Amino acid sequence: MKSVTVNQNIIDLEYAVRGPIPQRAAKLKQQGKNIIPCNIGNPQALGQKPITFYREVLSLLENPNIIEREKYLYQNPINKFDNISNHAINVSEKLLTTMETGLGAYTDSKGQYFIRESVAKFIDKRDSINSSKSYLQSNPDNVFLTDGASEGAKAVLELLISDKNDGIMIPIPQYPLYSATIKRCGGTQINYYPNEDNDWALNKEILEDSLQKAKYHKIDVKAIVVINPANPTGAILDSSSIMQVIDFAEENGLSIIADEVYQENLYGGEFISFAKAINNRKIPLFSLHSASKGYYGECGQRGGYLEVRNPPKINNSEIPFINLLFKLSSVNLCSNTIGQALVYLMVNPPQKGTDAFDIFTKEKRTILDDLFNKATLIRNSFKNMDGMECFGKIGALYLFPRLNKLPDNSNDFDYCMSLLEETGLCVVNGSGFGQKAGTHHLRIAFLPSIESLKNVLPSWTEFHNKYVNQ
Amino acid sequence: MKSVTVNQNIIDLEYAVRGPIPQRAAKLKQQGKNIIPCNIGNPQALGQKPITFYREVLSLLENPNIIEREKYLYQNPINKFDNISNHAINVSEKLLTTMETGLGAYTDSKGQYFIRESVAKFIDKRDSINSSKSYLQSNPDNVFLTDGASEGAKAVLELLISDKNDGIMIPIPQYPLYSATIKRCGGTQINYYPNEDNDWALNKEILEDSLQKAKYHKIDVKAIVVINPANPTGAILDSSSIMQVIDFAEENGLSIIADEVYQENLYGGEFISFAKAINNRKIPLFSLHSASKGYYGECGQRGGYLEVRNPPKINNSEIPFINLLFKLSSVNLCSNTIGQALVYLMVNPPQKGTDAFDIFTKEKRTILDDLFNKATLIRNSFKNMDGMECFGKIGALYLFPRLNKLPDNSNDFDYCMSLLEETGLCVVNGSGFGQKAGTHHLRIAFLPSIESLKNVLPSWTEFHNKYVNQ
Repeated sequence: MKSVTVNQNIIDLEYAVRGPIPQRAAKLKQQGKNIIPCNIGNPQALGQKPITFYREVLSLLENPNIIEREKYLYQNPINKFDNISNHAINVSEKLLTTMETGLGAYTDSKGQYFIRESVAKFIDKRDSINSSKSYLQSNPDNVFLTDGASEGAKAVLELLISDKNDGIMIPIPQYPLYSATIKRCGGTQINYYPNEDNDWALNKEILEDSLQKAKYHKIDVKAIVVINPANPTGAILDSSSIMQVIDFAEENGLSIIADEVYQENLYGGEFISFAKAINNRKIPLFSLHSASKGYYGECGQRGGYLEVRNPPKINNSEIPFINLLFKLSSVNLCSNTIGQALVYLMVNPPQKGTDAFDIFTKEKRTILDDLFNKATLIRNSFKNMDGMECFGKIGALYLFPRLNKLPDNSNDFDYCMSLLEETGLCVVNGSGFGQKAGTHHLRIAFLPSIESLKNVLPSWTEFHNKYVNQ
Repeated sequence: MKSVTVNQNIIDLEYAVRGPIPQRAAKLKQQGKNIIPCNIGNPQALGQKPITFYREVLSLLENPNIIEREKYLYQNPINKFDNISNHAINVSEKLLTTMETGLGAYTDSKGQYFIRESVAKFIDKRDSINSSKSYLQSNPDNVFLTDGASEGAKAVLELLISDKNDGIMIPIPQYPLYSATIKRCGGTQINYYPNEDNDWALNKEILEDSLQKAKYHKIDVKAIVVINPANPTGAILDSSSIMQVIDFAEENGLSIIADEVYQENLYGGEFISFAKAINNRKIPLFSLHSASKGYYGECGQRGGYLEVRNPPKINNSEIPFINLLFKLSSVNLCSNTIGQALVYLMVNPPQKGTDAFDIFTKEKRTILDDLFNKATLIRNSFKNMDGMECFGKIGALYLFPRLNKLPDNSNDFDYCMSLLEETGLCVVNGSGFGQKAGTHHLRIAFLPSIESLKNVLPSWTEFHNKYVNQ
């Protein structure tokens, strides 16, 4: 058999979230060790319950045959069983009528139009926009429904990057989807460094510094990626940081890629969308959102969207940018229809007055409170860990503490691997996301049950103080 | 706003199936014209009913809360409503136990292991393999669950192609996923031409001829794509053609990419999988299958798989080929879980003795008979169309007749556009798939209801004879 040379970009790309440490954890689990998996933002794998209303609707969409029976049962309940909510029945019927062809057919490549319309309305409402003349309203034609948010990010990067002379600015640390996709597309990753000690804030100097280095290497910087609330740091970006990114992008003709999938995961800070902050300024903006995070947590169902505003003008073609994105989505045929339906539900939560409202509200509150409690519990335990420091208003599903003290010849990878071996706690080393040279971190997703965290935190603290003082 | 230069490969790529003619059809439909959409293999958009058993299971997986009630109702039926089959309840419970985390969690990047195991068993059973020592059994570790089959094809091409010196042989005509993806990856498309007049058969000379041309242009050919049953021609490849492709690939050290998504759509020919035909020969094979076609027709739910055998050795890395594919799938996190579950159901049809068996068998038979009848009806009508000729044993969801007679200054694109304007029948021009220079074709998907076809065929025949004789 002849051997082949394969695409070097794929050989080179790295994806730590599913890298050596989680792979070792999987092995240990097979051997019967109790693993506390804090390496990935996968809430339902760790016991988070899905929102009942979502699942009722998705279930009826998959099997519309039972809708009439559900109506009957709603009127004639069987004593010992709960019924599917009337609101779920109504919404399912409405969706099936609007979708015409149900879940089994390919949709428009961008996704069902009425769902894109709903997304646009949701964005305008979220950003509290009245119909002021100056504000640019969201346009359903510029909304793409995608298999999770990753697919949207990849499409934009693939379009913007032609070769290694094209640069994309990404925060360090970052979610490795970005470094991996830039590598995969053959572009150049340009690092910028949020100020950790100032709660990971940004300012013009930080951004300029990064851009100047790129220019020195003759890199044409196309866009800046901002993740807010951030993955892996969990930090929420303040208004001043956001405005300075926008000014910077405008001055330098950059597009902004705003990864806002954690916009509902806020525990002490305020979320300001880039769409709202840009207002009517003519800066190309690609915003990403997803049904995988927030209180929804439906990672496996792969629902997400990409919204584009002020699509950039193109030098080397007459084809509008949106049409090129459409071409890319056409080759994929369409995103999965359950994911599309879930995005619809995400942007249309049950309203007061419907029978689904109370339980929905309670479930949402429980999930978010639980996340807040777990984040607080872990963050408080850092106080007892020698040289462990954690910055930023807490958002997303992660804490990203800095290991100020480590023995010589050790690093955060070794630390995390030893932590796993000794305690079963699986976290990801900071170097997997990138970090300022000479610093060491870890990312912990605060998703396992509060009981299992209460169990493991003392062993972690003990491990830590022994490890760093060895 | 600064304008940007975007990736030329994406500007250049074409995707006719959702190109100008279908776009015009969508406009006409908006204006109230009756459109018969034969441009895309999207069965449920055209009234094909989903398989009841699949939907029952998927529905219960989305809402496990109702399973206990369904059991109760099975024992205590309500007079006027059908129950969910007992088999669906059992399978759902089994799946939920095995999946542990339900549909809401990210799975292993390759997909749930037990589903990959099921796929491997299905392949071995399909190919009637007893455990003979020499035969290479399917390996679940080399199975990847994907969002439809397209995703698998893209991953393989992305790995095999480094730059424009890398060539991929594809049949002409072909499904534009391949030309588009090769373009997108920056590789070179190497055409080979199945012999239309001999029912689109292949032989060594055809393949050698194509390879020599590539070598003359210093192209390093990496793989050959075969689509069987074929899209767009609908032809089923005979055993001799398949063996000659295999010999050719072996002699020249090529990988085979076998797109076998239409393996259940056979109306007069036999399907021979490449896995079976290769047997224990050490030829790298990438086989694709999907829940979108066959009698399943669940396009929107995006379930598919890629099976790899004899993964090629790699020159420029120590990392095994399978691990590189795994890395790519990691960046995508995982394919959607409903699609994964559907693949499980596809490879585990209800068996005799279960209460779902009879209705499943009837539904399957009805769908396939209906497709056969529609294909036959259309193909027979070609006899009344001047210079219309159609070759090949019918498979897949398509016919691809040749327009032997066209007025000067016309071509198949003009023909199809006029056909749409005059009759509302939307088909795709052969040039959208590639065709031998100087020939003209169209692709018609035989999916609309037999009534609507019976309605439109006389107008088409009339249009045709007038058009070609103008």
